[in-house]
Amino acid sequence: MTTTGPRRLHLNAFLMNAGHHDAAWRHPRTQPERVTDLKYFQHLAQTAERGLLDSVFLADGLALWGKVRHNALGGFEPLTLLSALAAVTEHIGLIATVSTTFNEPFHTARKFASLDHLSGGRAGWNIVTSGTVNEARNFGQEEHLEHALRYDRAREFVEVATKLWDSWEDDAILLDRERGVYADTDKVREIGHRGEYFGVQGPLNVPRSPQGYPLLVQAGSSEDGREFAARYAEAVFTAQQTLADAQSFHKDLKSRLTRYGRTEDELLVLPGIAPVIGSTEAEARALEQELTDLQVPEYGLAQLSGMVGTDLTGLPLDGPLPELPEERDINGNKSRFTLVAELARRDGLTLRELIARLGAGRGHRVFAGTPEQIADQLEEWFTQGAADGFNIMPPHLPGGLEDFVDHVVPILQRRGLFRTEYTSRTLRENYGLARPANRLVAAASAGAAPA
Amino acid sequence: MTTTGPRRLHLNAFLMNAGHHDAAWRHPRTQPERVTDLKYFQHLAQTAERGLLDSVFLADGLALWGKVRHNALGGFEPLTLLSALAAVTEHIGLIATVSTTFNEPFHTARKFASLDHLSGGRAGWNIVTSGTVNEARNFGQEEHLEHALRYDRAREFVEVATKLWDSWEDDAILLDRERGVYADTDKVREIGHRGEYFGVQGPLNVPRSPQGYPLLVQAGSSEDGREFAARYAEAVFTAQQTLADAQSFHKDLKSRLTRYGRTEDELLVLPGIAPVIGSTEAEARALEQELTDLQVPEYGLAQLSGMVGTDLTGLPLDGPLPELPEERDINGNKSRFTLVAELARRDGLTLRELIARLGAGRGHRVFAGTPEQIADQLEEWFTQGAADGFNIMPPHLPGGLEDFVDHVVPILQRRGLFRTEYTSRTLRENYGLARPANRLVAAASAGAAPA
Repeated sequence: MTTTGPRRLHLNAFLMNAGHHDAAWRHPRTQPERVTDLKYFQHLAQTAERGLLDSVFLADGLALWGKVRHNALGGFEPLTLLSALAAVTEHIGLIATVSTTFNEPFHTARKFASLDHLSGGRAGWNIVTSGTVNEARNFGQEEHLEHALRYDRAREFVEVATKLWDSWEDDAILLDRERGVYADTDKVREIGHRGEYFGVQGPLNVPRSPQGYPLLVQAGSSEDGREFAARYAEAVFTAQQTLADAQSFHKDLKSRLTRYGRTEDELLVLPGIAPVIGSTEAEARALEQELTDLQVPEYGLAQLSGMVGTDLTGLPLDGPLPELPEERDINGNKSRFTLVAELARRDGLTLRELIARLGAGRGHRVFAGTPEQIADQLEEWFTQGAADGFNIMPPHLPGGLEDFVDHVVPILQRRGLFRTEYTSRTLRENYGLARPANRLVAAASAGAAPA
Repeated sequence: MTTTGPRRLHLNAFLMNAGHHDAAWRHPRTQPERVTDLKYFQHLAQTAERGLLDSVFLADGLALWGKVRHNALGGFEPLTLLSALAAVTEHIGLIATVSTTFNEPFHTARKFASLDHLSGGRAGWNIVTSGTVNEARNFGQEEHLEHALRYDRAREFVEVATKLWDSWEDDAILLDRERGVYADTDKVREIGHRGEYFGVQGPLNVPRSPQGYPLLVQAGSSEDGREFAARYAEAVFTAQQTLADAQSFHKDLKSRLTRYGRTEDELLVLPGIAPVIGSTEAEARALEQELTDLQVPEYGLAQLSGMVGTDLTGLPLDGPLPELPEERDINGNKSRFTLVAELARRDGLTLRELIARLGAGRGHRVFAGTPEQIADQLEEWFTQGAADGFNIMPPHLPGGLEDFVDHVVPILQRRGLFRTEYTSRTLRENYGLARPANRLVAAASAGAAPA
């Protein structure tokens, strides 16, 4: 499926409890008392759908993030929440984060196939390898698997999952009541996978789903992460602070595709942006300042310590970052480490200033302005080779998403940059991506075992 | 929470693709083309809710069951499907089967807590240990864990899960915007579990849910299964062919409760029944015969082979069961093995007759009759100490459930045996069961580490 007509940008709404700003829950426009209320997320998803966005997305961690003392953390598990949202939405894609480090491919493939059926083809999987020792300790491990090994496991995991999704041919179900034949079992195959990390016999116990596979999304921007993305991902979320950096990342990622036999239009790059929206620029800046003033420094310092792999507790807030380790010694999110270290150095920020800069986007770009100014920014990045679309991270919810949908989307539509109606049925179609062919069928007809 | 007024029976609707009869999908009243259509299951759940039933329930297996060539097998994964159904129902409980043998307690505890929040307190967990080597082979194991070890693991799994559900106190969230304190971290605890099978640090990343724990359900009737149920279960599904057997099971299970400090009203026994409903007895019997005539003997023989742990392929359908192993040598569902072996011996059944008898209920009781006759049966078992309620297994869907709701439920209501409106908010309240106390709080206030 190739999009016809003018090139259009794609928009994902990244949902997060009270909003992306770490002080959002203290702001009077947010509703942190509703973070375990389905109706709240239903409103968010339906707002994004009213704005004709491509998808909503939930991040995930397998331990209580950061310091729950000072932020509205914890709440729904993504696959259960998105399954519920599937029942009350019609067009919007539903992207759940699931870790390959702490799951089994049979379960994961099955749940995504189930969500894809439930939603009529709107499931997406943000593939993460998990980055913290606190997660490992919830799964019987004292230390976290080393970065490169996590990606090794992730590759095998995705290979197994795609084989499982391919284990039923699209037309395997015959439903021949007369002869008593429900399925053509020549078209439902064991996958017989025996690898380094997994042994999975198959077949899956879910028929092939509307999209074949869920949309495959990835968000790690390290060397390992980029290579993994080039091989498997169809959409990539990335944190980029400047146009130049985003252009360079976009170009780098696209250039890696050929070695996997893929073309540039088979992968979309979606940088994150936390838009702080005001009806005037002054109003937007005032809102940004208001959120900064609500930050709890102790929380910001703990978050920053995690990002830079260095305990910053007790350091003076008005002093600089101390000497940091090298990226190669970081076993968490390597690319985020480098981004934060460079941001602090480039702009000569104190710890307090750095915490303020990271408050709304955790390293993603923050932009405060009017709807026109925000649309300008999106247009610039989209037309200058920095982005195929954006991961919208409202600093406060639900208002920040409502403002984006009501005020920024119409401008993008007037400029011909964004759809004015949903014209497709599945998430992959929203993004203009093709439904994957069944590789096991291809292998079987070539008389060979699948690779 | 104790129920007041007359003792009422409880009803669970056991949902299954085209229905419980193994030939249901061939019958013109079923819709096997809709087994991956959310709207189909939405209709089933809403029908059960229209009938004021306590809950709907989904069984599960982690491999493709039996022979998909001859039955409408495969489809939705329970937790994703029930999460979707949570969004389109209001009162009915949602019970998902999840295996303790092939899952991690952190994931399982979290998903059920999430479903409990999503549904406003309507989640239930049917705890199974899984019984087949085909499931093991989807998780890197060549052989299936031995029966007693599976229950060992299950016990530790449930202990870890309950600790995780208790890791947030009910009032841990302070939401003090003024002081910037979201949660009282003295009330969010690590669980520090280190056991034989699991090491889980905790806390869970989901606040304590409306029910505290999901309703804990169990369905194994072996010696290990009964003891496990007596310790943990709040509702037990069981296959019982005769009033006397059901009375004996009911009495046995209730008698085991005291050793765990529990009282008889803390556990409900719900035998399965597959009601074949007709407006006359002749019509019901004709429908039963019609379904029998649609059976594929090859499928029935494969199913029976699994139940009795013996390959019956090629044996004459009009001959008897061959010599079978002892229950102690069965590593699958021990109690079902014994039930089937006894049924065949007691009634002197040929293989063909046995396959017909097992077609609708897989060992659960099948009863064909008018709505009045079915209500009589339920009343008898309920008043004669054989049941606290029933697990209703419609032979064909959606019609078999619609008939039950439209014709049997009103009779039970007129007899004062069943509710005439929902008066409670949670699944546990539907069943007249109390919300569990938080054991970690009790342990902390006693100054002791939790057991």
